[in-house]
Amino acid sequence: MKIIGVDLGGTYVKIGLVDTKSGKILKKSSIETKVHLGGETVVKRIADAILELSNGDFHAVGIGSPGSIDKDNGIVRFSPNFPDWHNFELGPELLKLLNKKVYIENDANSFVLGEKWFGAGKGKKHIVALTLGTGVGGGVISHNKLITGNNGIGTELGHVIINPNGPLCGCGNYGCLEAYASATAIVRMAQERKKKYPDSLIFKDNEITAKSIFDLAKQNDRLANMIKDEVVEALAIGITSFIHIFNPEVIIIGGGVSRAGDILFNPLKKRVDELVMPSFKNTYEIIQSPLVENAGILGAASIVLQRES
Amino acid sequence: MKIIGVDLGGTYVKIGLVDTKSGKILKKSSIETKVHLGGETVVKRIADAILELSNGDFHAVGIGSPGSIDKDNGIVRFSPNFPDWHNFELGPELLKLLNKKVYIENDANSFVLGEKWFGAGKGKKHIVALTLGTGVGGGVISHNKLITGNNGIGTELGHVIINPNGPLCGCGNYGCLEAYASATAIVRMAQERKKKYPDSLIFKDNEITAKSIFDLAKQNDRLANMIKDEVVEALAIGITSFIHIFNPEVIIIGGGVSRAGDILFNPLKKRVDELVMPSFKNTYEIIQSPLVENAGILGAASIVLQRES
Repeated sequence: MKIIGVDLGGTYVKIGLVDTKSGKILKKSSIETKVHLGGETVVKRIADAILELSNGDFHAVGIGSPGSIDKDNGIVRFSPNFPDWHNFELGPELLKLLNKKVYIENDANSFVLGEKWFGAGKGKKHIVALTLGTGVGGGVISHNKLITGNNGIGTELGHVIINPNGPLCGCGNYGCLEAYASATAIVRMAQERKKKYPDSLIFKDNEITAKSIFDLAKQNDRLANMIKDEVVEALAIGITSFIHIFNPEVIIIGGGVSRAGDILFNPLKKRVDELVMPSFKNTYEIIQSPLVENAGILGAASIVLQRES
Repeated sequence: MKIIGVDLGGTYVKIGLVDTKSGKILKKSSIETKVHLGGETVVKRIADAILELSNGDFHAVGIGSPGSIDKDNGIVRFSPNFPDWHNFELGPELLKLLNKKVYIENDANSFVLGEKWFGAGKGKKHIVALTLGTGVGGGVISHNKLITGNNGIGTELGHVIINPNGPLCGCGNYGCLEAYASATAIVRMAQERKKKYPDSLIFKDNEITAKSIFDLAKQNDRLANMIKDEVVEALAIGITSFIHIFNPEVIIIGGGVSRAGDILFNPLKKRVDELVMPSFKNTYEIIQSPLVENAGILGAASIVLQRES
């Protein structure tokens, strides 16, 4: 079966034609979102790009969108990336143009579905997924079903408070997981300590990024290592709680920060193993997302598979 | 329909004949557990008590048991209250004696089921339940299903870490919710501060209990108020995270500590309202369990209703 996966971002829309049997992206394209043109025009541009890519030869469309989604009606309630979209009927509008079924899901939920159908969660019924990017997103599959909560806004794993004396989070609370483990937080941790560690190699580069900090931790830069240790500890505390809550088979971590690889994952696995209660030992694996830059499109396509399963 | 609910405790077994339509307990009895007599004898004693209470006129038996339960096979894997029961076939043994269906569930899960079928969770599909007793237990209904996780050991909400710099928990970690909000933790908080606050009325009584401390907080005892504030803050942090994770319609709090009533619930509701993210405001209620001393039997009976629904 061929499915269109749409990874709807604030700047770019990535579109892929996915063969669900092989999990391969047969064709893909990327267009600028151009939010300022308004919802209807954006939808028209997406529809055109889908038709150009596929010649209409596909079963249905899955869209992973940031923000709060009314999945039953295909409506984007609101999204930080699309400030003008309030209760925008993204699904119905696209259906009109394509005459194909359209399914929409929050992008963090789309990520965990992508892992379940095409990634490290294949064949698993209990999956906790974290995306460490600008923010920290969460998606959970429990007993084979996506957990979304009563208003479809649940599994905000980035806003679980892991230390009430911790740094201020964008949400207004102190010590959310996101305030420690997002790319934004990691860069902030470096900037805050520039005065105390002016000689750190972190500040030799023009641009400070989570990637540059983890790269320098590998080279034993003192400040970079301190920051890495804090990120590991925060993630370990959060993940331990998620294990105690969901008793998952696997915790899958994606997003830009996850690409740090072993320097992040090795100490993280060790620390979580120390923290989980005895009855939870060896009940889970912690895995770096294997989908990398295809996570968005494959996740979006898998929304269709999950809803129709 | 008539169902037998069995609340299996370390000291007493409470048994009730429940009319599922009215939610009333028609008859109940209590026998000593006498664990030392061994599993088979305990089961025989329970079967005798059930037959005495019901004359065999009931549809099935639900048992709420502490510990780790293999619900599919009716087996108690292990339980702190029954140290000799390793993989004890409680369900199959009772089935042999009664020739009726027997369903078993962990007691914290049984509690949330009781609330769903007979208590503050009636008609709700998304419920988080906490029992504040010797420990802190958790049960979650999400999308109308009990969340148990891959090995049936999930929703250990008492072992979510809410402050890594907090007090040592019985599980070995620091700052679990249980280390702040269990009756045990509350009494410990008082004892630790006896030297600093020797004049607190808490120490005038012979026995320090969570109840006596909350009663003294009502009378403006300074230490009692400090402890109350800490319990409220810890619960508020934990519950805020549970709201962000599960987006529930209701959070139901039971167990001995919950009977403190308004002095606990009023500041708790206010604090959670301050802490939840804007999109979660007014999506939930926090309610004191209305089932009180019948929670165990009604919870056990509702295991049958949930499994057969």
